Amino acid sequence: MKTVGIIAEFNPFHNGHAYLIEKARELTNADHVIVVMSGNFVQRGAPAFMDKFTRTAIALENNVDLVLELPVCYSMSSAAYFATGAVATLDKLNVVDYLCFGCENDNLDLLNLIADIIIDEDECYSEALQSYLKTGMSFSRSRENAIIKSLSLRGVNMSSDELSLIISSPNSILAIEYIISIRKSGSKMVPVPIKRLDKGYHSSDLDGHFASASAIRKLFGGKSIFTFNNVKETLSDIVPANCMELLENEYKKTYPIVSDDFSPLVGNELIKARYNNTETNNLFDITDDLANRISNLSGSYEAFDSFVNTCNSSIFTSSRISRILFYLLFNYTKDDYFTFKDEGYVYYFRVLGFNKAHNSLLTEIKTNSDIPLITKISNAFSVLSENGKRMLSINMMADEIYRLVSIDKYNFSIPKEQQYGVIIKDE
Amino acid sequence: MKTVGIIAEFNPFHNGHAYLIEKARELTNADHVIVVMSGNFVQRGAPAFMDKFTRTAIALENNVDLVLELPVCYSMSSAAYFATGAVATLDKLNVVDYLCFGCENDNLDLLNLIADIIIDEDECYSEALQSYLKTGMSFSRSRENAIIKSLSLRGVNMSSDELSLIISSPNSILAIEYIISIRKSGSKMVPVPIKRLDKGYHSSDLDGHFASASAIRKLFGGKSIFTFNNVKETLSDIVPANCMELLENEYKKTYPIVSDDFSPLVGNELIKARYNNTETNNLFDITDDLANRISNLSGSYEAFDSFVNTCNSSIFTSSRISRILFYLLFNYTKDDYFTFKDEGYVYYFRVLGFNKAHNSLLTEIKTNSDIPLITKISNAFSVLSENGKRMLSINMMADEIYRLVSIDKYNFSIPKEQQYGVIIKDE
Repeated sequence: MKTVGIIAEFNPFHNGHAYLIEKARELTNADHVIVVMSGNFVQRGAPAFMDKFTRTAIALENNVDLVLELPVCYSMSSAAYFATGAVATLDKLNVVDYLCFGCENDNLDLLNLIADIIIDEDECYSEALQSYLKTGMSFSRSRENAIIKSLSLRGVNMSSDELSLIISSPNSILAIEYIISIRKSGSKMVPVPIKRLDKGYHSSDLDGHFASASAIRKLFGGKSIFTFNNVKETLSDIVPANCMELLENEYKKTYPIVSDDFSPLVGNELIKARYNNTETNNLFDITDDLANRISNLSGSYEAFDSFVNTCNSSIFTSSRISRILFYLLFNYTKDDYFTFKDEGYVYYFRVLGFNKAHNSLLTEIKTNSDIPLITKISNAFSVLSENGKRMLSINMMADEIYRLVSIDKYNFSIPKEQQYGVIIKDE
Repeated sequence: MKTVGIIAEFNPFHNGHAYLIEKARELTNADHVIVVMSGNFVQRGAPAFMDKFTRTAIALENNVDLVLELPVCYSMSSAAYFATGAVATLDKLNVVDYLCFGCENDNLDLLNLIADIIIDEDECYSEALQSYLKTGMSFSRSRENAIIKSLSLRGVNMSSDELSLIISSPNSILAIEYIISIRKSGSKMVPVPIKRLDKGYHSSDLDGHFASASAIRKLFGGKSIFTFNNVKETLSDIVPANCMELLENEYKKTYPIVSDDFSPLVGNELIKARYNNTETNNLFDITDDLANRISNLSGSYEAFDSFVNTCNSSIFTSSRISRILFYLLFNYTKDDYFTFKDEGYVYYFRVLGFNKAHNSLLTEIKTNSDIPLITKISNAFSVLSENGKRMLSINMMADEIYRLVSIDKYNFSIPKEQQYGVIIKDE
């Protein structure tokens, strides 16, 4: 029995995701597909466009056999932390043979070489990285340039434009981080890059069979859209037909949810921090400089997105600032992260959904891993350590806030986190 | 030079308020009218329907010469605390001769007698109060019944139905509390009740020249209203003509604001209190029982109003629960209140607006009172004691949150609290 793991957001699910799942099965000849999926908050520091239960239901319809939730502590963090948490989750299941991921480039040798450069901190790379950072360039851009420099010294026969294209796309950055995480953790999972057919991450192109998730989100955000019918035709070309009914049913009941729906909530935290002189430099992934910057500008806060635009700079990206504003809302601290890291990153596997035909996979996980599989939130706290409870609490707080924002936006009541069972697909 | 004080919410301003101001001038022959007006949060535990600056501008158009803000610590509290704070504010100006208030009944002897019964805690009243409370009746209802019992023993020649009508209306309750506060503080202000011509507090009747503020708020809340034109004709009968343009301009820019606009914010506080095991029994005006009740029910929270309905009981009124939910949002504690009380309730007079023709009134206040007049928020902190700063901070936090909620609701940018100057009417 072979199992392949995929790390995903499905925010929302589209034909590119369906292709990835199909290819992953085909290339690895796997019997089971497990997806570790971001919960209600995603990597670029935003609420998920669509809640995790809807996305799980769609994934199960599209040949995913088991969906586990990537805790918010990792799902909404920069590429390296995201990859570390997600790879650790798949690895500790002790049943996953392959990790498949979409990538602009499926040259595993090249990806491995780049991972080597970063892990080994080769001299040329390290020096170049430092010198780019000193110019005030952001970390990700500095790293990209340092990698290109180091690759060209090693005689990689590609133009720096070509390399830049491969290295700088968000998917490639994640792909490299997955490989680094596998290598660093000593995982036996085999990385399998799959060349993406869909449009790039940032593409807003909606023509043809493949479109990026961000293009789909944009489609819903257009001011002229008042009914689902306005997007129905375009959408049916770029998402699997089996999603359409669910997407139509849930529209303006549970989605779309966007960052600005959290504007007063995040603003309230900034107001409180200001009046109570709360230290914010203990939040995860913040520096003293960034804490000061946010604090100094917080008086001008009116709404989430515009404030992020006010705060960002060549050093501090919009995504990073967005994430930190949510960490402030959830009070996710450096101490939290380093405790989790010290204890191996993973305290539980939260099952969001599974295909009953692959029930044996759950049994196999229970046999192979000591880490508890959580199928019912209300029972979870009794089996977790203090730090495990803390990780779950941050997630549940985030989920409860997401739910209230959704109810407030659409005036549509949805079950509480504790009332959702696992979504079971029974063919 | 005579000055009359009025305590008001003007939420929103209507012909009944204009009548009260006119009568107050007429009965007292006063040269100046000062209004102590609730800021952005009102007595029944709700955000003001219309922000304080708009209400100030309207008041100045309607023969109010000076508008001072009643701090949120008093403006959003039960009748006794509300009255104490407002009367102390007027009294400490050291320029106010009369306190005029609207009341279902303008029999000052009767109002004084009721105040006597309460202040002196006459035996019959105290025993009756205790026995009603023991039946599980709310405090206000128990007190009303005890007063009626005590009055009838003193031979007050009115049916208990008539008395109940006089005592139980929110305006009469406040009237009695004003008299009690004047008496207890030893103020020299002379109470002047003015019989209300407008419809009762809770009346939703919109016929004729007078309507209650709640009826007007309801008019705007109707689901069928999409443009100001729908309410224009009805409104022009019940509010002064000089408001109409401002009301039309501000509609769906800064008002209406309702409790449910604060749903996610208050829900977020309840979620945090639950996950962090925060003590909530130190909030102002809460009992351990009520803290437990709110905490136990908080898991079912979806929106503000529905949660208040879930929590209320014969003992704990909706208004009280609403207020406490906002105290939780602003972190206004028992300690805060008792510190303020110990220090005499009033740290500053915040000027919201004045009529330039009555400039001399400001000079007179500066001459007669040691308490600073605040006309510019940014300068205020330097002249206040620690506890004065705390009172102003609670108010400013509340204002900043109100502003963010308003911007979020109408996507219309409004100045920050610090950017508003005093509104000056220059005829």
